[in-house]
Amino acid sequence: MHIVQPGMEIDVLKENNKIANENWRLLKSHGIKSVDFMGSIGAGKTALIIKMAEKLRAKGIRVCAIAGDVTGTDDFGRFERSGMEAVNCNTGKECHLDARLIKKSLADVDLDGFDVLFIENVGNLVCPADFPLGTDYRAVVVSTTEGDDMVRKHHDIFLHSDIAILNKTDIAYAVDVNPETIAEDYSRLTGGLKKMYMCSVKKDEGIDEILAALGF
Amino acid sequence: MHIVQPGMEIDVLKENNKIANENWRLLKSHGIKSVDFMGSIGAGKTALIIKMAEKLRAKGIRVCAIAGDVTGTDDFGRFERSGMEAVNCNTGKECHLDARLIKKSLADVDLDGFDVLFIENVGNLVCPADFPLGTDYRAVVVSTTEGDDMVRKHHDIFLHSDIAILNKTDIAYAVDVNPETIAEDYSRLTGGLKKMYMCSVKKDEGIDEILAALGF
Repeated sequence: MHIVQPGMEIDVLKENNKIANENWRLLKSHGIKSVDFMGSIGAGKTALIIKMAEKLRAKGIRVCAIAGDVTGTDDFGRFERSGMEAVNCNTGKECHLDARLIKKSLADVDLDGFDVLFIENVGNLVCPADFPLGTDYRAVVVSTTEGDDMVRKHHDIFLHSDIAILNKTDIAYAVDVNPETIAEDYSRLTGGLKKMYMCSVKKDEGIDEILAALGF
Repeated sequence: MHIVQPGMEIDVLKENNKIANENWRLLKSHGIKSVDFMGSIGAGKTALIIKMAEKLRAKGIRVCAIAGDVTGTDDFGRFERSGMEAVNCNTGKECHLDARLIKKSLADVDLDGFDVLFIENVGNLVCPADFPLGTDYRAVVVSTTEGDDMVRKHHDIFLHSDIAILNKTDIAYAVDVNPETIAEDYSRLTGGLKKMYMCSVKKDEGIDEILAALGF
């Protein structure tokens, strides 16, 4: 449900940002590093988070994941089965997480029980952009299967993200997509200042570079 | 931008439905049949519409397409290059089309110049569900590359659609997805009353069945 009223929209965003700041301070007071993963359905956010958490666990870093979805427990179940601490966060109807939902989720976990929080936002390349959650980083994940025009169609979420990740490079050939086209669009959008990180979660390619970009 | 206020939300939806009814009556008064295609980014909505329009053109049926996107003219350009009459409809910020935007687009075309209107909604599997545009049919298009859990995660859009289409069956193997799982979820959601249409636009498989389901 999405309703725009001039004025009111500003109040809602202000309120969200205020709670996002509270979330950030709470996480920092427990020494937790956090990343919000945004992106469309099927971009591979769940698989990427699980793979990154595995690699961090091997270094003794404990990860907790919040699974954001409209309904269901599919991604939450995947996180749990991978051995991670996880929280399910259903929006019910909304197409994005917001800072208040994260505040509630954080009340349900032991903040001294993990070092890193990965939040998987609702599968949507439009709506989450406007709602920071209070994480250190915001990452946008896209997949080659989404076509080569995602950056051209969705400036906002790429401009709101600290890091952009292109997943499923291994099947780019099968969907007739050239990953370089997407990377060039992103470089152009960011004035040549930022590069897109390429990866194949399935083949475990490119994940270490992403972890390094996030300061791990 | 998405703001929910009890009460106001009802007014906005009522207003949308009122204009949707006007759109429907306008289209019917010109003998135009219409379909709203909803679905996530990369589901293959543009390619499906182009392929269907080609097949209809071969039968002497003229198609006009409205390309709905947040920004850009990528899909609009594809429609035009395929030889179809097309209208570009950018939402600017919004994550879905609404009846008012379609009303404006319809004012820009000769309603006696085509027989069928295909509307491609913004790439999003959540938000368009609440906003009927005034079409005869609403179709949801998903792709095997989105994983096997789309129906379980997104009840609303499947329940709001008259027809559900699963595209890219040809690369299901490459993304480890079993199309039958998705079809079974959909059958369960609709109480066994409806089946999911499977297709591969790229290989021209299953398109004729979809056209038949839409009464062509």
